[in-house]
Amino acid sequence: MQVPLDGLPERVTIYEVGPRDGLQNEKAIIPVADKAEFIVRLADAGLRTIETTSFVHPKWVPQLADAEELIGALPGTDAVRRPVLVPNERGLDRALANGVTDIAIFASATESFARRNLNRTVDESLAMFAPVVERARAEGLWVRVYVSMACGDPWEGDVPIEQVVSVARRVMDLGCSQLSLGDTIGVGTPGQVTALITALAEAGIGPDRLAVHFHDTYGQALANTLAALRAGVTVVDASAGGIGGCPYAESSTGNLATEDLVWMLHGLGIETGVDLEKLAATSRWMAGRLGRPSPSRVVQALSP
Amino acid sequence: MQVPLDGLPERVTIYEVGPRDGLQNEKAIIPVADKAEFIVRLADAGLRTIETTSFVHPKWVPQLADAEELIGALPGTDAVRRPVLVPNERGLDRALANGVTDIAIFASATESFARRNLNRTVDESLAMFAPVVERARAEGLWVRVYVSMACGDPWEGDVPIEQVVSVARRVMDLGCSQLSLGDTIGVGTPGQVTALITALAEAGIGPDRLAVHFHDTYGQALANTLAALRAGVTVVDASAGGIGGCPYAESSTGNLATEDLVWMLHGLGIETGVDLEKLAATSRWMAGRLGRPSPSRVVQALSP
Repeated sequence: MQVPLDGLPERVTIYEVGPRDGLQNEKAIIPVADKAEFIVRLADAGLRTIETTSFVHPKWVPQLADAEELIGALPGTDAVRRPVLVPNERGLDRALANGVTDIAIFASATESFARRNLNRTVDESLAMFAPVVERARAEGLWVRVYVSMACGDPWEGDVPIEQVVSVARRVMDLGCSQLSLGDTIGVGTPGQVTALITALAEAGIGPDRLAVHFHDTYGQALANTLAALRAGVTVVDASAGGIGGCPYAESSTGNLATEDLVWMLHGLGIETGVDLEKLAATSRWMAGRLGRPSPSRVVQALSP
Repeated sequence: MQVPLDGLPERVTIYEVGPRDGLQNEKAIIPVADKAEFIVRLADAGLRTIETTSFVHPKWVPQLADAEELIGALPGTDAVRRPVLVPNERGLDRALANGVTDIAIFASATESFARRNLNRTVDESLAMFAPVVERARAEGLWVRVYVSMACGDPWEGDVPIEQVVSVARRVMDLGCSQLSLGDTIGVGTPGQVTALITALAEAGIGPDRLAVHFHDTYGQALANTLAALRAGVTVVDASAGGIGGCPYAESSTGNLATEDLVWMLHGLGIETGVDLEKLAATSRWMAGRLGRPSPSRVVQALSP
């Protein structure tokens, strides 16, 4: 039943992260042909932005060691944007050499996570990103930046909103086009999300330049998404079938499942362009490849 | 991190349904001593309304065949309300004989579910409830009514809002004090929830007399709860640990997990009186009794 709600957008762009953020955080290593099929099927289900892989060093993320091979295996398309994560200048070189037109960089709102994930202070990581964004822009690339730990940090606990805004302001000043607010550990709740988006707008980063990236670790992802939509955000990250694992339990989940998001959006009469049945069938197929059931509630509920 | 959101209540009453709606829908049959311990621990965790059991015929719900014995095993208390489900006059007799002061009856918004669950038409079921409510009120009991299939029906599909309002109006006219809107199959989305609550208010049933009862089958329960809170509802049904099973998959869930609800409410700075750690510990203990992991995301995330 489709019943709109006042104050929400008519259309939402889903930024699909399953092939990169999802597969990167699964134990199983999927063959390149299956990854290519996954991406082709996601596009066939109507997803128009699909983060494809990462040019991080294979030592850190063996799951995505086949980045060049995967890009080579994908059919040419103008209809689908296929951003690739780029951690540094070496990654950018690889992206440019492989004809990538959209990239994403991965920043942290906290010192603790910057140290652990990037082995740098926040200042040092921004210094590392500056030439990446500058060169990418000079080459005409579209650049997204993730700001992770935006709602909390496992080592630091609460992350003050002004700290997130400060990092966000600095990365956007480098020249990025879109900022994805990442609640990396899934602890945020709707008031915090609304306050963050409001504070970013006051700092000159309006909701038209934002995306939200919620994890369902505490079950809050869709409620937070609803709050973000009300605050004017129209780009939402999600992972087909909810893939992306979880540090806690087999049945738990990291990323918001694209299907659960689509169910809510379509129920609200919001256009996504996604064919839910095709998408869920793709996620069931990938769950078979990963050897575990999909944590998506909708994928489970729609299963024959 | 606590960040309030405009337009939400300062305090929410959680109507805990785990011992009745939860255990009724689990395969395992729990010994009466464990049920009593479950209820005592839920109260110790701060829950102040706990639906305890059902006086339905044991042939239909063998899981709750020990209703009298359970009530006899519970300690006396004035601090906690312990409603019991009562399907008919025979059930009411048993409730009165056992000193029950709060009861709930279970109506359906659709003919299909009334037939399957109550073996009656909607009209016939209302005729059956009328003397139950009348006698209960005459005895000074508090009466809640569930209106199930309020957001969709597995046989009929969409359920028109005016049909839900019509049934709601008729059951409330019998003299019930509270109406719990049940999205029994979990298909509803926030716009539909808002429209339903608005339509009920226009029909004279304000949000102060409503509760909401969401199932997480499609992952929508918390987003729908957020919409209901915005529409003025302050009583929310939930099941500790998300117990209550699911027709689809082991890892899926029926009822909204109380812990997932509490996480959102406390994050929004909304008082519940609940101690989340104690509650999650209780749910982990019950999951052990049921022989399967809790489907609550928060219980999983907080597990040591």
